[in-house]
Amino acid sequence: MSPNPVIPDTAVTRLATYLRVLSERQVEGRLHVSSAFIGAAAGVSPDQVRKDLSHFGEFGRPGVGYDLEQLRYHLARILRLDRVRPAVLVGAGSLGSALARYTGFPQRGFRIAAVFDIDPQRVGTKLGELTVEHVDCLSRRVAELGASIGIIAVPRWACQSVVEQLAAAGLQAILNFAPGKVDVPEGVNVRSVDLARELECLAYYLPG
Amino acid sequence: MSPNPVIPDTAVTRLATYLRVLSERQVEGRLHVSSAFIGAAAGVSPDQVRKDLSHFGEFGRPGVGYDLEQLRYHLARILRLDRVRPAVLVGAGSLGSALARYTGFPQRGFRIAAVFDIDPQRVGTKLGELTVEHVDCLSRRVAELGASIGIIAVPRWACQSVVEQLAAAGLQAILNFAPGKVDVPEGVNVRSVDLARELECLAYYLPG
Repeated sequence: MSPNPVIPDTAVTRLATYLRVLSERQVEGRLHVSSAFIGAAAGVSPDQVRKDLSHFGEFGRPGVGYDLEQLRYHLARILRLDRVRPAVLVGAGSLGSALARYTGFPQRGFRIAAVFDIDPQRVGTKLGELTVEHVDCLSRRVAELGASIGIIAVPRWACQSVVEQLAAAGLQAILNFAPGKVDVPEGVNVRSVDLARELECLAYYLPG
Repeated sequence: MSPNPVIPDTAVTRLATYLRVLSERQVEGRLHVSSAFIGAAAGVSPDQVRKDLSHFGEFGRPGVGYDLEQLRYHLARILRLDRVRPAVLVGAGSLGSALARYTGFPQRGFRIAAVFDIDPQRVGTKLGELTVEHVDCLSRRVAELGASIGIIAVPRWACQSVVEQLAAAGLQAILNFAPGKVDVPEGVNVRSVDLARELECLAYYLPG
């Protein structure tokens, strides 16, 4: 498959939302959906839906809308969600343990296939069905597992080094839960989620 | 304190980043910092730093920069981070349990003061130092604790009802980890974090 065009992150997020809309109960039994229907469910305008999809070709037919199954198939392929994606997790602390057990990932096609840590007290312990492995095994295991995504749940000080190890192991997509700024190696896509930052941004709107 | 001006979410996020920059080791011993210094550490232009701060008055002096301690004080007040904020968590499943134990929150001034669930098997169990309480006690406990922030880690189907219960209890700030669309009650600020969505967006850039 050819590489996807570079579009804004917000547009990628909307595509994922459209796919979710098309997979929800409300569309059961439908053969076609309109951009207005998708837009209303996703909280954006019909124009936005059409514009976002236009990056990838012509899908809909005027007056008929989109063939639901066809659009779902194309969106899943565009988002590379047409197969289960093995992911590796680095960091088996409190957040890492939760992510390893989080049922929302497998439900959406992401399977955490291995967990790594550097702490000898954690290496060898069980986390659900996985056994925590030493981070020195990372590169070999990524190749064995055919993993394509790395998830980082380590303290801030360890983060840069883990990003580099994941990149060296050949991973091109990293979800980072460690706070702080990261230098991203070329050809690697890093998304950072800073949970405390989300709370900080919420607090802005609290009454003083 | 007067309510904060409405500025884009991205600007609030940048303010939180500036505060983080001012609190990091690299500024130790400095009395002044420039917008160029803050910008470089935050990954934005000096102009952007000045523009973001200009919403809240005049802080810097040309040629001298910002008084570091003063700017840190003001930013903390603007972001309402000048005191510990008790938060309540609804949902004691795998993600909720991790959030309750996540050390990143107290480090950044947010204390999870109570955890609620609806499942009789979870109510009464211990989660770290907290005991899971029934969600029926939510409103009374929010008042007792002086909580200002709610965190939601429940399944999608339960989310809308929990948002409404938190709003009814008087909370104005909600961090929502449940996937799906939420109707937000007036006067309430909801930020949604969909962890699987983050992975979906990363997958877009993977080779087909």
